[in-house]
Amino acid sequence: MKIDGKAWRSIWLQADGWSVGIIDQTKLPHEFVTVRLVSAAEASHAIKSMMVRGAPLIGAAAAYGLCMALREDASDGALNAAYEFLLAARPTAVNLRWALDEMRTALLPLPPAARVAAAYATAAKICDDDVAICENIGVHGLKLIEDAARKNLAREVNILTHCNAGWLATVDWGTALAPIYMAHDAGVKLHVWVDETRPRNQGAALTAWELGRHGVPHTIIADNAGGHLMQHGRVDMCIVGTDRTTARGDVCNKIGTYLKALAAHDNGVPFYVALPSTTIDWTIDDGVASIPIEERAPEELTRITGRTANGGLCEVDIAAPGSAAGNFAFDVTPARLVSGLITERGVCAASNAAMLKLFPERAS
Amino acid sequence: MKIDGKAWRSIWLQADGWSVGIIDQTKLPHEFVTVRLVSAAEASHAIKSMMVRGAPLIGAAAAYGLCMALREDASDGALNAAYEFLLAARPTAVNLRWALDEMRTALLPLPPAARVAAAYATAAKICDDDVAICENIGVHGLKLIEDAARKNLAREVNILTHCNAGWLATVDWGTALAPIYMAHDAGVKLHVWVDETRPRNQGAALTAWELGRHGVPHTIIADNAGGHLMQHGRVDMCIVGTDRTTARGDVCNKIGTYLKALAAHDNGVPFYVALPSTTIDWTIDDGVASIPIEERAPEELTRITGRTANGGLCEVDIAAPGSAAGNFAFDVTPARLVSGLITERGVCAASNAAMLKLFPERAS
Repeated sequence: MKIDGKAWRSIWLQADGWSVGIIDQTKLPHEFVTVRLVSAAEASHAIKSMMVRGAPLIGAAAAYGLCMALREDASDGALNAAYEFLLAARPTAVNLRWALDEMRTALLPLPPAARVAAAYATAAKICDDDVAICENIGVHGLKLIEDAARKNLAREVNILTHCNAGWLATVDWGTALAPIYMAHDAGVKLHVWVDETRPRNQGAALTAWELGRHGVPHTIIADNAGGHLMQHGRVDMCIVGTDRTTARGDVCNKIGTYLKALAAHDNGVPFYVALPSTTIDWTIDDGVASIPIEERAPEELTRITGRTANGGLCEVDIAAPGSAAGNFAFDVTPARLVSGLITERGVCAASNAAMLKLFPERAS
Repeated sequence: MKIDGKAWRSIWLQADGWSVGIIDQTKLPHEFVTVRLVSAAEASHAIKSMMVRGAPLIGAAAAYGLCMALREDASDGALNAAYEFLLAARPTAVNLRWALDEMRTALLPLPPAARVAAAYATAAKICDDDVAICENIGVHGLKLIEDAARKNLAREVNILTHCNAGWLATVDWGTALAPIYMAHDAGVKLHVWVDETRPRNQGAALTAWELGRHGVPHTIIADNAGGHLMQHGRVDMCIVGTDRTTARGDVCNKIGTYLKALAAHDNGVPFYVALPSTTIDWTIDDGVASIPIEERAPEELTRITGRTANGGLCEVDIAAPGSAAGNFAFDVTPARLVSGLITERGVCAASNAAMLKLFPERAS
C-alpha cells in the first residue's frame, strides 16, 4: 500500500538484484527506517528481533534469506544447513516452515548451479502469491463494506479492527485491512476504529500508522471502548485477522478479540474474520479446548517505549512496582460469535460445512 | 487499609488539629508522596489536579476545604463563597455537591463563632460515615467470597476487578475492594486479576499499588485478557465499582466494564457491582439511553508517564503520530449482565423490585 503517496511492499528485492529491503517494524510508529539485508544471518536476525513480523512476511523474509545463503554456497549441505538455521529463527511459526519447505522442495532437485536463480524466482513467487491471496480477500471483503455503505448512505461506514492484520503483517494489502484499503481506494466513505491492542499496542503503533500513511480515516481507541461504541450504533462491522482457525470456524487471534466478538454479538454488529486459508488448522475443532495460549514476558505489559517531547525514544515502567503481570497473547473466539470468514475464495459462514463448501479438497 | 503494615486512610486531620493530609495520587504508583493542605484553595487544587480522586474522597476533601475556609472567616458570606469556590473544583461530581450541602446545612444555622468546630466535626462524620458504608459493603461482599471459597477448597478464589474502586477512591476500604480486603484479612485464600484499565491505567497504577501495599496477592493483566481467563475457569467472580447506577440496576462504570460483564455472562462467572446507595440515580432506568458518556482528552490514551531505568519520571507519546484518538471514559453495563449489587444494606439482584426491597424508602 502507500506511504505518503508512494507504493510500498513490506519486503522487496533491492536494485542490486540480490539483497533485500525491509521496514524495521520495531521502530514504528516512532521512526520509519528501512534496512538492507545481505545474508541469511541478517534475515534470521530480522525475524528474531521482530523487525519483520506477521506470518506471511516472516515466510517471505526466510525465503529470501535462503536465496542469500545459496549465493555463497549452493550445495545440498549448505541448502539444508540454511533451511535449519532460518527455521530456528522462529521455530513455532507455521508459515516460516511452509515457506522454507516450498523453497527446499523446488531447489533440491536442481543442479547447484541453477539453484540461486531458481531460489530468487521461488521467493518472488511466494511474495506474489501472498499478495494475490490478500488481494482476493480484499475483493471478497469489499462487497461486505459496499453492502454496508448502501445501507448507510448518509454517513461513512464505521469498521472496528483489533491488532494489526494490515500490509505490514503480510507482503501487501494485509488480511483484515485488505477490504478496507480496497473500499477506500474505490471511494467508499469509511472510518476505522483502531483498537490500541494492549499489551504490544500493534493497533495504535502499526495499524494506525499504516492507515494514516495510506490516507484512510481512522481513530485510535482503548481496547475497552468498542463495546460502548457498538451499544451506540457507531460500529457497522468488525473485521479482524486470525493466527489460527479451526475446522469449525473457531478463531484464535490477538488477546481481546473474543471480547469484541461478544460485544458485536450483543449489539447485532456483524463480526468478520479475514484469513488466508493457510491459517485453517483442519485437524482441530474446539479452539478453546485445543489451542494452547502463549504466555509472553510480563514486561510487554508493564514497560513501554514512546517518544519524548524532544523527539528521543524512552522506555518507561508504567505499573505498580513489585506487582506481578500476566501476559496472555491470544484468545479464542468461538465460531458462534463469528458472522463470516473472508477467505481468498470467498466469504463463508464459520462452520465446518460452509468451510468445506469453499475448500472441498479438504473433505475427507 | 495498610501500607507496608501501617494503617492509613486516604485523607486525615494532621496532628495540628486543623490542616489536612492526603496522598498525592497523581504520583502513584511511581512515588508515594503525602501532601499537607492548609487552605480551601489547596483543597480545591488537590481536587482539580486529581491528587485526590474517587467520589467519596473528593467529597471529604471539599468538606475539609470548607473547614479551613471558615477558620479564616466564618461569616455567612464567606461560607457561601467557599461553598461555591469548592464546588467549582469539579462541578459534575455529585458527591462533591452532596458533601458541601451537608456542611452548609449543618453550619448555616449556627452562630459564626460555633461554625469552625462544628465544621470539623461534620467533616469527620462525613469521613467516618463513608468508612462505615464501605465497611458494610465489605461485610456483605465477604459472604460471596466465602461462599466461592467453600466451593473451591483446593485453591484460592480468583476475583477479577476493573479500574480502581479501592480505598484510594474512598476514605478507607473502598467499594469493590472492600470485600476483597475483608476476605484477605479473614484468611480467605484469594488472588485478584487487576485489569490495567486503559487509558488512565488506574488498575495497574492504583489498584495494583494498594493491593500490593496491603499484601493481597494479585496480577496485573491487559484489559483484553479477562475473557480468555474466564473461558478457562481462572476467574471465580468479578467485582467492580460504579459511578452511577440506574433504578433498574444498569451500571455506569469505567470504560470496558461492559466487555467484562459480557464475558462473565458468556462463561457463567458471577459479576457483582459494589456500590454505596448514594450512587443510585432513582430517576433513570435505561442507562445506555439516558447516561451521557464523557469524552476526555485524547492525550490520556496517546501519552503516558512512567519510570525510566535511572528512576526518573518520563512522559512519552506511544501512538502513531498524526492519528486521531477517541477517549470514551465510561460505559453502561445493562442490569441483565449483573449478578448482584453489593450495597451497604446487603446484596440484591440488579432489578428495580429487588433494589426497592433493600431501599423501601425510595418506593413512590
